Amino acid sequence: MMAVPNTRPPQASPVVAMVGGGQLARMTHQAAIALGQRLRVLATSADEPAAQVSPDVVIGLHTDLDDLRRVADGADVLTFDHEHVPTELLEKLVADGVNVAPPPQALLHAQDKLVMRRRLDAIGAAVPRYLGLNSVDHLDEVDAFARRVDAPLVVKAARGGYDGRGVRLARDLADAREITRAYLTEGVPVVVEEKVELRRELAALVARSPFGQGAAWPVVETVQDDGICVQVIAPAPNLADDVAAEAQRLALRLAGELGVVGVLAVELFETTGGALLVNELAMRPHNSGHWTMDGSRTGQFEQHLRAVLDYPLGGTDAIVPVTVMVNVLGAAQRPQMSLDERLHHLYARMPDARVHLYGKAERPGRKIAHINFLGGDPAELPQLRERGELAAHWLAHGQWTDGWDPHEERR
Amino acid sequence: MMAVPNTRPPQASPVVAMVGGGQLARMTHQAAIALGQRLRVLATSADEPAAQVSPDVVIGLHTDLDDLRRVADGADVLTFDHEHVPTELLEKLVADGVNVAPPPQALLHAQDKLVMRRRLDAIGAAVPRYLGLNSVDHLDEVDAFARRVDAPLVVKAARGGYDGRGVRLARDLADAREITRAYLTEGVPVVVEEKVELRRELAALVARSPFGQGAAWPVVETVQDDGICVQVIAPAPNLADDVAAEAQRLALRLAGELGVVGVLAVELFETTGGALLVNELAMRPHNSGHWTMDGSRTGQFEQHLRAVLDYPLGGTDAIVPVTVMVNVLGAAQRPQMSLDERLHHLYARMPDARVHLYGKAERPGRKIAHINFLGGDPAELPQLRERGELAAHWLAHGQWTDGWDPHEERR
Repeated sequence: MMAVPNTRPPQASPVVAMVGGGQLARMTHQAAIALGQRLRVLATSADEPAAQVSPDVVIGLHTDLDDLRRVADGADVLTFDHEHVPTELLEKLVADGVNVAPPPQALLHAQDKLVMRRRLDAIGAAVPRYLGLNSVDHLDEVDAFARRVDAPLVVKAARGGYDGRGVRLARDLADAREITRAYLTEGVPVVVEEKVELRRELAALVARSPFGQGAAWPVVETVQDDGICVQVIAPAPNLADDVAAEAQRLALRLAGELGVVGVLAVELFETTGGALLVNELAMRPHNSGHWTMDGSRTGQFEQHLRAVLDYPLGGTDAIVPVTVMVNVLGAAQRPQMSLDERLHHLYARMPDARVHLYGKAERPGRKIAHINFLGGDPAELPQLRERGELAAHWLAHGQWTDGWDPHEERR
Repeated sequence: MMAVPNTRPPQASPVVAMVGGGQLARMTHQAAIALGQRLRVLATSADEPAAQVSPDVVIGLHTDLDDLRRVADGADVLTFDHEHVPTELLEKLVADGVNVAPPPQALLHAQDKLVMRRRLDAIGAAVPRYLGLNSVDHLDEVDAFARRVDAPLVVKAARGGYDGRGVRLARDLADAREITRAYLTEGVPVVVEEKVELRRELAALVARSPFGQGAAWPVVETVQDDGICVQVIAPAPNLADDVAAEAQRLALRLAGELGVVGVLAVELFETTGGALLVNELAMRPHNSGHWTMDGSRTGQFEQHLRAVLDYPLGGTDAIVPVTVMVNVLGAAQRPQMSLDERLHHLYARMPDARVHLYGKAERPGRKIAHINFLGGDPAELPQLRERGELAAHWLAHGQWTDGWDPHEERR
């Protein structure tokens, strides 16, 4: 080797463009810092969570081709903080030569529940029994479907829903028809599904690189309240090793078959009979993976960056026996204390709380933060869950639901 | 409580100003993101490590009062990525009403080795035998000191050195006098010390808040090469519990006595006789604490932010049995592969490596990154250390010192 003085500049670091400036982009920027990468975000305004903390922000809309082209310009790869970019715009970017990850034909399965259900059927992945409808002309099929499944019906808008929006449990058959008709009249395709008898919900999170490498985190249990995830337990307690391995294999297989690049979250129903059915797919870092930021060898945000840039993937083992993640959802009424004061009190009571704030204005039901609790022994789980609930409620509402009062403690 | 709609804006988040735009500020910004804070850095140029990744950068000099005032303007607290701000400027900021943490009279003990040695003597903390000199008029005292200690002499510039610079082992008495004379002639006070017979070097890292709360991480062993830290082992292996506790108590006591606010690193000599002597102090996140980013409940960058803003401190326990941190120091000759290519290969061989890149141009001997390796069993330590050395050398030089060749593996 020649003796060239070593004064290589750092400019060769990769640039990742991310569509969306929410908390997922914010936490991806955090991970990009350690990897020496530059994250450029497309945000709708300068006060979005990621735009507050990143120096490389393009203000624009994910539905505007010019804005998408601006954020993609010169980037090594374009990826997503949400699923809402129209496929036709992504295909134009691909035609421009932009490296879109996941590619539009994979992403489609996280954008359209009907496309996803049909593809999973074709692949042979177990899903709830469903009926897909594109037109009011076939509305009568709902009746036949209802007779066949003989179960309560869930009606889902195939596109545009998230966090429980666009998913409705029908009171009866007439209600199911009405909801279905309303969506179809708006031009939104519909999936009508049997309401599955659940033991619980699980999620299998994996990452896949363009090279084809896959990596699976431990399968987690996700606890929902009114269709919104409120708690995640990693790993899922009392899950048989073979069932956990089956869920991981399924997620890796789907990532491969669909051509996913980046993180794929497979939300699963564990039925009362013990079967696993695929509920939803997300092709980006996902709420069910927030525990990995503190509890796993490699966090999902770093892994997503590694995957979309085709680095070898990081180890996905849990580094502690149990992690509980709780979401902090904005309270209906304004707490008396500021969020900053509430954070002080939380830290005073729980020095082990790993808090991740999103920099978002507080609004009722809005995800404004999450908190991870790490346990050294699986036996700590009930206590971690209880403390997690207390912490999340306190940070949102400024009230300890167990009546704890630090002043009483001192007496 | 009145039913006020909850639409509180996020602007109430604290602003922390940090003097210096190096890797410590870069990693502090990463931690600030999770805490919902805004880190504003004073950097000398837009391509410094922290300036690359933060949206709130003031370009200026740490020796310019106007620049310091600009970065402090409106911030909740002013803190540091290095020790080089002159005391008189900090005192002017304090007079302006700026909340400087650590305060100048504490920071002085990390800026001036002679002030530090004398204060520690007064406090009763054990230090190597030393002689302090402010003037060439007293140069003859070196001879008397040399006779008294009967050991090789180390001559240290009291101010301005770091990473081994400004610290010289004298060949003999005449050499000690010459080095001392040279520093004194430049107006730099000198500490002449006995060269202590070492078993090894340790570091005790703590944090202290203005409220007076203290928190101590496990004591670590720091491995030096030519005066530069190359490896840190957490916790320090084979350190008796009572000695570790003594080191933690000492560091907490020093933090209290000196009025430190923020992180304090106490670098210690463990003598061949088993005594602990204080070598150096640093009042900021410190290289010996980089392992906490992945291996401890609370990382030192988050803890520093919590301390300077007077939040309750986070838990400091190790979350895995053993962590090895290695520094990546720029190679003398330019590697054939780019840093990015070297990172690919590192990840391919070691999926468990937790890499933290600083975004710095590579120059010989310059710290450009560190890597953490987490072990599930203390018995893994020798293997972790060996892999750490391999990884650090690879990332700097693009050469596996064990001759590993991925192409051979495949045959």
